Amino acid sequence: MFSYEHIIPIEKKSKIPVYRQIAISIINAIRNGIFKPGTHLPSSRELAKTLCVHRKTVIAAYEELNTQDWIVIIPRKHVAVSQYIPLLKPQKWDEETITSSYGHEFKLPFDTVNENLNEETISTALDIIIDDGYPDVRLSPIDELLKTYRSLTYRKYGIKNANKGTTQGTLKLRDELVNYLSETRGLNISAANILITHGAQMSIYLSAHLLLNPTSSIIVGKPNYPIANMAFERTGAKLIEVDVDEYGIDTDKIEAICEKTKINAVYVIPHHHYPTTVTLSVARRMKLLELSKQFSFAIIEDDYDYDYHYTSSPYLPLASANHNGNIIYIGSFSKILDPSIRIGFMVAPANFIVQCTALRKVIDFGGDGYMQNSLATLINEGELKRHLKKAKKCYLKRRDYLDQLLNEHLAKYISYTLPTGGMAIWIKLNPDFPVEAMTKYNLKINRLDSAQNAFRFGFASLDEKELEMTVKALKENILSIENTL
Amino acid sequence: MFSYEHIIPIEKKSKIPVYRQIAISIINAIRNGIFKPGTHLPSSRELAKTLCVHRKTVIAAYEELNTQDWIVIIPRKHVAVSQYIPLLKPQKWDEETITSSYGHEFKLPFDTVNENLNEETISTALDIIIDDGYPDVRLSPIDELLKTYRSLTYRKYGIKNANKGTTQGTLKLRDELVNYLSETRGLNISAANILITHGAQMSIYLSAHLLLNPTSSIIVGKPNYPIANMAFERTGAKLIEVDVDEYGIDTDKIEAICEKTKINAVYVIPHHHYPTTVTLSVARRMKLLELSKQFSFAIIEDDYDYDYHYTSSPYLPLASANHNGNIIYIGSFSKILDPSIRIGFMVAPANFIVQCTALRKVIDFGGDGYMQNSLATLINEGELKRHLKKAKKCYLKRRDYLDQLLNEHLAKYISYTLPTGGMAIWIKLNPDFPVEAMTKYNLKINRLDSAQNAFRFGFASLDEKELEMTVKALKENILSIENTL
Repeated sequence: MFSYEHIIPIEKKSKIPVYRQIAISIINAIRNGIFKPGTHLPSSRELAKTLCVHRKTVIAAYEELNTQDWIVIIPRKHVAVSQYIPLLKPQKWDEETITSSYGHEFKLPFDTVNENLNEETISTALDIIIDDGYPDVRLSPIDELLKTYRSLTYRKYGIKNANKGTTQGTLKLRDELVNYLSETRGLNISAANILITHGAQMSIYLSAHLLLNPTSSIIVGKPNYPIANMAFERTGAKLIEVDVDEYGIDTDKIEAICEKTKINAVYVIPHHHYPTTVTLSVARRMKLLELSKQFSFAIIEDDYDYDYHYTSSPYLPLASANHNGNIIYIGSFSKILDPSIRIGFMVAPANFIVQCTALRKVIDFGGDGYMQNSLATLINEGELKRHLKKAKKCYLKRRDYLDQLLNEHLAKYISYTLPTGGMAIWIKLNPDFPVEAMTKYNLKINRLDSAQNAFRFGFASLDEKELEMTVKALKENILSIENTL
Repeated sequence: MFSYEHIIPIEKKSKIPVYRQIAISIINAIRNGIFKPGTHLPSSRELAKTLCVHRKTVIAAYEELNTQDWIVIIPRKHVAVSQYIPLLKPQKWDEETITSSYGHEFKLPFDTVNENLNEETISTALDIIIDDGYPDVRLSPIDELLKTYRSLTYRKYGIKNANKGTTQGTLKLRDELVNYLSETRGLNISAANILITHGAQMSIYLSAHLLLNPTSSIIVGKPNYPIANMAFERTGAKLIEVDVDEYGIDTDKIEAICEKTKINAVYVIPHHHYPTTVTLSVARRMKLLELSKQFSFAIIEDDYDYDYHYTSSPYLPLASANHNGNIIYIGSFSKILDPSIRIGFMVAPANFIVQCTALRKVIDFGGDGYMQNSLATLINEGELKRHLKKAKKCYLKRRDYLDQLLNEHLAKYISYTLPTGGMAIWIKLNPDFPVEAMTKYNLKINRLDSAQNAFRFGFASLDEKELEMTVKALKENILSIENTL
């Protein structure tokens, strides 16, 4: 005989109703071969007595099991496990093995992704974090965005309008971007040239998968935004690295490579290259456009950092020049508003956008239509522009204040070129001070490059006091190493 | 001499400041080879006169061009186009060619995605839409969700907490799901077993790309959720179709195939299979688990429709049974709350989740941390459960009312099995009435299957009056065809 109290443990404090606890335990016992097909179960009266529960509770459990075909109830005769359940070898009844299936490793072969995940660690309030160039979300008009969001979700709007998202992005936002991108970037496009994505990374991923395959080659900067490189690597394409100097990626070298090898695409970050923050010079922009025509390669222009340029208006995108339609222009609102607001865009010829949209549908179906329409309103009402103006002013001050602090406190130990825009300074440490060692006093650096002994110091997210605190923590790290030299 | 009024057209009504309009026009003229390197430009005084603008405006434009190195200003001597710009063949000065680069097709070869996009068409208020099984967003606690969202974005929370999203999903939501999935689905897991995605589709895409490659085979239902099939096809794997009957996918046929061929994965939708709405029977669930152990294949269990089961509690997932850790369990909140709320989850062994997270980072970096934490609060406060209880009651009523309407009005023309759960009925039309012809009277059907002459009638999003209206429109379509027979 079975020890039903043992097989069907009941936790009265659990949020799961008792009748369902009983049903689940019986299902598990069947699934583990403890109760075989045809096994008679006790009557509801008997089981209720054994388990010290009300008989109605057992009846409810049995009814549920009956509806799902786990058991058969023959009224006034018996209750039995269904005959139609495949016969299983009984497993040792052991709560451990039943409940810990996900404690196993996944054992079948599966592809692995070549990446040092470098996942942001959970930080405590005490941590001093140097990010790689984040906006200060305290300045962002998130509340305005959410007010619109809420108004869109009010009942009266019903289902027909508010969340009418399509995979390509809501028409409202795309129409708004047609004007916005014309005004801010001199792009002359229509809504059919735009795909709304979850951010710059998704635009990179999508275009990589359409443009590249194991027989292709793509030119990238050295160093480059590492997660873009991973997207290109996933396609099996060959990555050819070209040095990035103070004027951006070296276009003479690109030309030399193109003369020898078929190049399918070139990936550039024209404003404030990641990680080095340099801006691609006018001469090289022109040259790159010419090369793209001459050697028929696509340009993936990742202009995520367009908006914060301090020394002049931002440089007009390559995409705004006369080209053959082979430029895929990528932008993002996540870096402007909040990394949590996952909205970016891709601009390309309509036939390319159609195919990107089809691929994107397979990946995640689409984005948040409410949020897209709320952003459209934010742009339309001029709120985004006001925010950008305010934030740019503020970030410029912060850049200059960080520059001043670094000069005052750390000039001996570091070198850097003040960037003409963006949200971070690329700082090289003198060789005596390895960047990986900068972890004392709760300091955490999100993006560091061991090869160059350098890191990105995001200044935009920190106010004056926070900048002082962070530079102080960095200095303490450096001094503690200096004392051991 | 140049006709500067022609090369530099000024629109006083434009939102672009006049100085920037001038700069942009000059940049375009340089980029198009109209102004060659070294070309002298008029003095600011002269140009101001020609263009009828204030001299300061031209000075501002020249300063901007100078900062960006397009031109060189030699004070008191001249203004000239920089020598460092590559010499270009002048193009015909023609506004059309300058501004319509994205009017071109993308000409380089690129991969295409095999899909009839079937993009939702923009609908007008007059349209009567039969969706394929959407929630009624009017019932959803979106406002509660947004209240939390707003409170999370308030300034005082600063940058350290509120948007602390990681690629894997916020720890707060994953911790909450550990309890929630234990309570509702009998899953015994930890936060390391969970990846938060943008919805069920993304979980399918990620697991497909880790499990499959061009040498693999995956078994899917026939018919099957078409966008899942597309995700599998993208990996190059072979898709083997197995019939779905009234008990779900045919496990005997799966066994027969496994005996001949190496199968890497089986994709199942155990609750309310898409599109047919059948529920996988207990006997077949048990059999499938056994086969998975015997033939070592992974099971991708897409249980997006778990919550709305009407005849009993939902069936416990395969993932809750004793297995080897080879089950990837997929769920979604988009179908519960609102298709715009892009949050889903994947449950798998920790080593698999680590790799999925790495791949997901390359695709789109991550999700909306605020929204994830707001959902965690919604779950924690019991609001989600209350919503599900209320919605389930309401949807059951709607299912039964639609059943009644169909019986009253259309019994002669259609056949269907009332589903035991979910948000749609799978309706087959008699052969005389082709489903593609049901488009009169503004009727739009989102998911139809020509081969089976069938479609999904989503009832959950429609109240009684809307159901009546929709059935009426369907009837009118059918009658108008009957009249021509």
